[in-house]
Amino acid sequence: MFEQLGLIGCGLMGGSFALAMKRARLVKRIVGYSKSPSTTARALQLGVIDVEAPSALLAVSGADLVLLAVPVSATEATLKTIRHMVNPGVLLMDVGSSKRDVVDAARRVLRGAMSGFVPCHPITGSEASGVDNADANLYSGKRVVITPIDRTAPDKLRQAELLWRDLGCDVISMTPETHDAAFAAVSHLPHMLAFALMNSITEQNDGRDYLALAGPGFRDFSRIAASDPNLWRDVLLSNREEIARQSELFERSMAQLRRAIGDGDGEELKRLINNASHARANWRLTRDTR
Amino acid sequence: MFEQLGLIGCGLMGGSFALAMKRARLVKRIVGYSKSPSTTARALQLGVIDVEAPSALLAVSGADLVLLAVPVSATEATLKTIRHMVNPGVLLMDVGSSKRDVVDAARRVLRGAMSGFVPCHPITGSEASGVDNADANLYSGKRVVITPIDRTAPDKLRQAELLWRDLGCDVISMTPETHDAAFAAVSHLPHMLAFALMNSITEQNDGRDYLALAGPGFRDFSRIAASDPNLWRDVLLSNREEIARQSELFERSMAQLRRAIGDGDGEELKRLINNASHARANWRLTRDTR
Repeated sequence: MFEQLGLIGCGLMGGSFALAMKRARLVKRIVGYSKSPSTTARALQLGVIDVEAPSALLAVSGADLVLLAVPVSATEATLKTIRHMVNPGVLLMDVGSSKRDVVDAARRVLRGAMSGFVPCHPITGSEASGVDNADANLYSGKRVVITPIDRTAPDKLRQAELLWRDLGCDVISMTPETHDAAFAAVSHLPHMLAFALMNSITEQNDGRDYLALAGPGFRDFSRIAASDPNLWRDVLLSNREEIARQSELFERSMAQLRRAIGDGDGEELKRLINNASHARANWRLTRDTR
Repeated sequence: MFEQLGLIGCGLMGGSFALAMKRARLVKRIVGYSKSPSTTARALQLGVIDVEAPSALLAVSGADLVLLAVPVSATEATLKTIRHMVNPGVLLMDVGSSKRDVVDAARRVLRGAMSGFVPCHPITGSEASGVDNADANLYSGKRVVITPIDRTAPDKLRQAELLWRDLGCDVISMTPETHDAAFAAVSHLPHMLAFALMNSITEQNDGRDYLALAGPGFRDFSRIAASDPNLWRDVLLSNREEIARQSELFERSMAQLRRAIGDGDGEELKRLINNASHARANWRLTRDTR
């Protein structure tokens, strides 16, 4: 059990983590800080945190567990404000959806105090954001990817793994590089494609009429286009190299399809669709550890 | 009530139409033909049709209603085999998901006998195909797009509209050109994007590992990639001009996103995502007529 959780960022991700930790009786006291004082006040009012901290630094003071639940673009600045309170006895985790930039920021800022930092990406979220939507179940049954580096202390890594398992999560581990490549392919690029499709249709004169004809296939394909713009701006900027690489690979596959269609090459077109259809039909949503 | 339905193509779409017509007591007798004799035999065995015809021409003989439920690529050849039996007293409909090529084929083949042809696209289907999956409910509550041309006889058009409404469908009408542009944007291009994404991932060395990490967003986005390769080869080839146009517009939107990411231009990136997110959040699946 942890004595004190220092929660930096009391929004959906941070607030839900606090509620889940309380319900699982994994922490005695939660001291919270959010950039916006009204969010911190609301978190206290809702019982998400026990004490309001007037700064990020003071939220970390006395904590044996710190969760950074801020937008990935704010990671480096936040680490700078708390670094003097971070010591090897503190387990420090984040929840950002890109990992290489977070690890790089931590290396730059924390230097010698890196050993207690365990970079995490819980694969969860919601279209609804903010502390009012915080939910003790947000993490239950979800997968958490941990991306330790060589300077991560083994005991802190183990402590982090146990914590997430106690919250009902499956934990898997990989390098920050593998993480960013994989999520560029299966999450960040698909979001970009869905954003681009919506923009491409709505910018046409008859786009509104076209959308009125769209069916269930379009509904499912485009669902992720409704995601939070601030969060996705940050994710796309923070993982730009891998996203650029995945975009190029995607454009090659798209060009193959366009060429087969343009050439009227039914055999090649069927081969390409067959590959895709077969791969998708054999895919299953899983949360098994690898 | 129709005296005799000549059904050409006894697969999922044709077989389900036959079952729905029977259940609604809209037809006395169904004479069916499929290219594969075993399909026709199975349709008879399942009670989908009443009589097996040894040829498409003989399925049309004596019919006052003919439904062409063949792949769009087979439309022109099928029309050629039946044209001598098509007369202005017969209501002839198809169910193809592209319309300009079907109308062009009909113009070339039927010439003077075009007035009874009403081109239709029922917005329905299933991942499961074949007469064994035929379902009297496949059309219930679905939308049917009718794309009449200037030579379509008003009484045949009205007859077709009434028929689909009697099967529980919403009927809307537009030109073949508008139909093809709209479906290129909201259906054909999204399918291509989903096919290309699957191919792009599976062609990478670590693609299998990446797919194991994919979550619910990927699941919904990529669902349509599992669609039937034969059907989609035909659809993409038959609507290639509009698809090429929509692909170019899409690539422009994609390039805007990539540029903003590459430039690290958070403001522009947020504006682009905002547009998409707003448009998608305001979209609703509808089957209301326009």
